[in-house]
Amino acid sequence: MSILVVGSVAFDSVQTPFGQVEDVLGGSATYFSTAASFFTGVDLVAVVGEDFPAEHVDFLQSRQINLAGLQRAPGSTFRWKGRYEYDLNEAHTLDTRLNVFESFKPELPSGFEDAEFVFLANIDPELQLQVLKQVKKPRLVASDTMNFWIEGKRDALVETLANVDLLVINDAETRQLAGEPNLVKAARIIRDMGPRTLVVKRGEYGVIMFRDETVFAAPAYPLESVFDPTGAGDTFAGGFMGYLAATGDLSEANLRQAIVFGSVMASFTVEKFSLDRLRTLEYEEIRSRFRLFKQLTHFEDLSEE
Amino acid sequence: MSILVVGSVAFDSVQTPFGQVEDVLGGSATYFSTAASFFTGVDLVAVVGEDFPAEHVDFLQSRQINLAGLQRAPGSTFRWKGRYEYDLNEAHTLDTRLNVFESFKPELPSGFEDAEFVFLANIDPELQLQVLKQVKKPRLVASDTMNFWIEGKRDALVETLANVDLLVINDAETRQLAGEPNLVKAARIIRDMGPRTLVVKRGEYGVIMFRDETVFAAPAYPLESVFDPTGAGDTFAGGFMGYLAATGDLSEANLRQAIVFGSVMASFTVEKFSLDRLRTLEYEEIRSRFRLFKQLTHFEDLSEE
Repeated sequence: MSILVVGSVAFDSVQTPFGQVEDVLGGSATYFSTAASFFTGVDLVAVVGEDFPAEHVDFLQSRQINLAGLQRAPGSTFRWKGRYEYDLNEAHTLDTRLNVFESFKPELPSGFEDAEFVFLANIDPELQLQVLKQVKKPRLVASDTMNFWIEGKRDALVETLANVDLLVINDAETRQLAGEPNLVKAARIIRDMGPRTLVVKRGEYGVIMFRDETVFAAPAYPLESVFDPTGAGDTFAGGFMGYLAATGDLSEANLRQAIVFGSVMASFTVEKFSLDRLRTLEYEEIRSRFRLFKQLTHFEDLSEE
Repeated sequence: MSILVVGSVAFDSVQTPFGQVEDVLGGSATYFSTAASFFTGVDLVAVVGEDFPAEHVDFLQSRQINLAGLQRAPGSTFRWKGRYEYDLNEAHTLDTRLNVFESFKPELPSGFEDAEFVFLANIDPELQLQVLKQVKKPRLVASDTMNFWIEGKRDALVETLANVDLLVINDAETRQLAGEPNLVKAARIIRDMGPRTLVVKRGEYGVIMFRDETVFAAPAYPLESVFDPTGAGDTFAGGFMGYLAATGDLSEANLRQAIVFGSVMASFTVEKFSLDRLRTLEYEEIRSRFRLFKQLTHFEDLSEE
């Protein structure tokens, strides 16, 4: 089954202690789509400006991503500029230019409304809701959000969350959204707002998933060279949802494997700037790193006595 | 096999968002010994002042801890005063009074020098070295340290580390000791200083162990009420070393189980102030939470195709 994703396609300018790049391909929907495309088909809904070059379109098409929903509007593509310090855990935003995103109205091309798997990347919750209203009968709706919307558009966000099955946010956002510092309590508060499943991204510390009575924690893969964390969270979500959609299996066991596939994809993304590592990635490398995750976390249970 | 531990026995005054306590039982060797005592015998080397009450001695004896090496010196017992904010990740030290610890000379009572498992808790590396020189033929020497010694007594610390098999420190200390922000690279630098195994404590994010070519990551148990993190690290080390000494098995598989037992013990300690949770803890609760750790982290490996 393919996935419908709505989010940003952008130009990023990024400074890290290891180098810097200007106006490289970025955006939540870009990272998500590319990661998911290793597992399943992706229908992309987003907007770019007149300055978006053919080479980026060609790259997305080379990943078999359906671009029928990629609008091209007069003006410039969304731009983000950020900086990371040595710890690489926090992005410091230097500049955000919404540009064509300011007047973006997501419209689903014919066929997209039958989507069974939907990912609402981190955009205005009102836009997330507009997309949801156009989808007929989704099997799994997942979404992301950020502090900006939690503070500024809480009512719309709460309305969206009531229609979301699975929320993927980071730990600071979890605490802020719930108004509760303890993560376990915060997870319960957020799950009462709608999403049956909460997946909390913790950067270099991995991911923790809360669902019904179960909790699943997966570490991030310890990398010797983390080059640029930009897009790690969206890449995680893409790998996670991509595997779920490809298998069509929403059991707890499969959700856990999907978390690991998402973590694997994110671990590749941060090895280079932009989507550069994903450009050369082979499926066998993904499976191989999945097995390394198993070695990283495995321990023997207690024998029954 | 029993463990020899040298470290502090102290009075702690702690403020958390959930309450505060004055002059309660604390200290690295106290937490370590009590946690380890659930698995094996412990020989304690430390010093207390004239103000150390019989009830605390009685408690340690009730845990079968050998107090032949607990010196009583003129003056007051070591005191630490600290405060935690809502995130509970970082202790803010408000006051430290070394008192009798200032002139502490660790001397091993007869029989202690045959120790096979040794833990040098976080004290002056010169004192750690004095203890090591008195031990005949240890099978496993583990140690802890902190920023204060990394900055102020680096030479003595480096000399100690050359004689240590296993170092247990937190992630900030790992980066500081190695002078390297990347944890994987930092681990290699530190392991080149002596310890074959490095166990990095990451607070609410768990533990990661570097050893030869393997890495093992274990999350912390997600708790609904983290009351007071004081002593979590020393409790972890006590459970970890206690299990190793009890089993006498230093294989990779057993080290991993020991990491989980340490994490289990730490997860109990933080549920109440001081050592209060450990006072009522039953061994069956430990085994039960170990199994919850397995559920927390387990996922199916990929099938071979």
